[in-house]
Amino acid sequence: MKNRFSKFKNRNVLITGGLGFIGSNVAIRLADLGANVLIVDSLIPDYGGNLFNIRDIKDRAKVNISDIRDENGIKFLVKDQDIIFNLAGQVSHIDSMVNPFVDLEINCRSQLALLEACRKNNPQVKIIFAGSRQQYGKPEYLPVDENHLIRPVDVNGINKSSGEWYHILYNNVYGIKAASLRLTNSYGYRQMMKHNRQGFVYWFFRQAIDGEEIQIYGDGSQLRDFVFIDDIVDAFLLVAVSDKANGQVFNLGGQKPYSLLEFVEMLLKVCKKGSYSFVPFPSDKARIDIGNYYADYSKIKKMLGWEPKVSLQEGMKRTVSFYRKYKGFYW
Amino acid sequence: MKNRFSKFKNRNVLITGGLGFIGSNVAIRLADLGANVLIVDSLIPDYGGNLFNIRDIKDRAKVNISDIRDENGIKFLVKDQDIIFNLAGQVSHIDSMVNPFVDLEINCRSQLALLEACRKNNPQVKIIFAGSRQQYGKPEYLPVDENHLIRPVDVNGINKSSGEWYHILYNNVYGIKAASLRLTNSYGYRQMMKHNRQGFVYWFFRQAIDGEEIQIYGDGSQLRDFVFIDDIVDAFLLVAVSDKANGQVFNLGGQKPYSLLEFVEMLLKVCKKGSYSFVPFPSDKARIDIGNYYADYSKIKKMLGWEPKVSLQEGMKRTVSFYRKYKGFYW
Repeated sequence: MKNRFSKFKNRNVLITGGLGFIGSNVAIRLADLGANVLIVDSLIPDYGGNLFNIRDIKDRAKVNISDIRDENGIKFLVKDQDIIFNLAGQVSHIDSMVNPFVDLEINCRSQLALLEACRKNNPQVKIIFAGSRQQYGKPEYLPVDENHLIRPVDVNGINKSSGEWYHILYNNVYGIKAASLRLTNSYGYRQMMKHNRQGFVYWFFRQAIDGEEIQIYGDGSQLRDFVFIDDIVDAFLLVAVSDKANGQVFNLGGQKPYSLLEFVEMLLKVCKKGSYSFVPFPSDKARIDIGNYYADYSKIKKMLGWEPKVSLQEGMKRTVSFYRKYKGFYW
Repeated sequence: MKNRFSKFKNRNVLITGGLGFIGSNVAIRLADLGANVLIVDSLIPDYGGNLFNIRDIKDRAKVNISDIRDENGIKFLVKDQDIIFNLAGQVSHIDSMVNPFVDLEINCRSQLALLEACRKNNPQVKIIFAGSRQQYGKPEYLPVDENHLIRPVDVNGINKSSGEWYHILYNNVYGIKAASLRLTNSYGYRQMMKHNRQGFVYWFFRQAIDGEEIQIYGDGSQLRDFVFIDDIVDAFLLVAVSDKANGQVFNLGGQKPYSLLEFVEMLLKVCKKGSYSFVPFPSDKARIDIGNYYADYSKIKKMLGWEPKVSLQEGMKRTVSFYRKYKGFYW
């Protein structure tokens, strides 16, 4: 992979949402590979952008604070970029139900605006979009591969699907090079830790690190898969340099599925503190919950050679150690 | 069916896009069944709304000229309605590529706004949405059933998919009753005949009636299916009165597939004039063309007993006779 990634040296890369969890980790890796990194982030409170995330590369990356809903800004910012890692998004499923139009503006309309900007000002660009397992809704079969029907169970899943398809459409019709990675539960360094509206994984980390009682909704038997941030960054970079990825949609997936209870028990062992209890599903979460999910990632493995390398236990150790050190910047 | 449709007597029904092709035919049928018909239509030039369409029921239907993008208007208009036939839309695939944001506002955002309006002001309502075969994109297999992946080849197909899913989501999460019909080539009385950016079927009718030369793109071997307007109206009414349709998506389909050449030859025979020639696909149409398509409509047949009753030849005769009589109001 190292050789392939030498292609990033001196390349102009734009990272939308580049102060967020995945964006900042992509930015750091690219800066270390010698790319000219431009980060665009809106720093909307609660969304995950955090200037501390890029502390290590602050002299090697440009930061432009702006919102992807700012169409004129985007028209300028996409110019002369070789690659766009398009990671800006509203990621809370719950928030998408409470404020569906905000979700639509960010996850659907702004994606179209970014692609239109590229079509007019930079049609040679390559764009990698962050899709979501939530697009599939409640799985009909497991593991879920890319042939599974898209049947979103919340507004976010619908708008993410539109955002993804605009990318694939502009690849197919206008020759912009685009691909999408459908992410499953992602965890690791630099994730937002301030509230629990963006999922449960990072929240369990926070509670375990603080020695608090983790509340598991239901009986903890739900199966999920988990991908560590370093593996996710690998996947984004790999898709960026692979021409055969253009126009494709790929699942990422974990090494194996775990029940939520297994996940929590492993996490408490890693942290050497904390506890858990079972509580009934709150109704707003129950109605958009997808039950068991784990991904079939054989397509990206076969086509691009990606697979998750970091075990859940190892990833947990690295994550816990990071937050213990930098808790003050995330809590 | 007649007995089932007696349920419409004295019911409040709202028809968005009610001055257009399908909307006006639905409106006429409902007025004849004794429903209290409220038509909402924007009369955007080129879209298909035509006051002549409802000439026969103008004393038995209310008409409110407004745009579904007018969120405040919609909030009021959905109140006290028992059923909404949600037929307003931007239907030109070509226009959706030229003005993608207009398509997004009408086919995606306004749908969400209508559903939010219902959630807040009329959560008991039933809504029937007009989806499109274009959502499937280029078929992977034929006939296409509802398990076929959604892979739109134009902006319209993406936004129609979002619009449809919002309906299904609001059915599943908020208890609004909603269903979608994915239409294939529709033809018959009261269709827009002024320009050819909304498909080829009605344009062939116009050219044949005028004795002009029909230009067939490619070699005419492409297979398509065709549904006559009276059958389409039946389907919408059937879904409206069927509780088991709630939350469902149904294909409509023709009695059998025809090649474009067969279609044109039959049409010329019915019209007793006109001619045809083959021309190469224009590039803007080639890149969003979906190749062969015909629908598997066994789901709606099995669940609701719908099937297309009017043969293509019979439908053509009725259509041609209508336009010969009223040409001045459509050309």
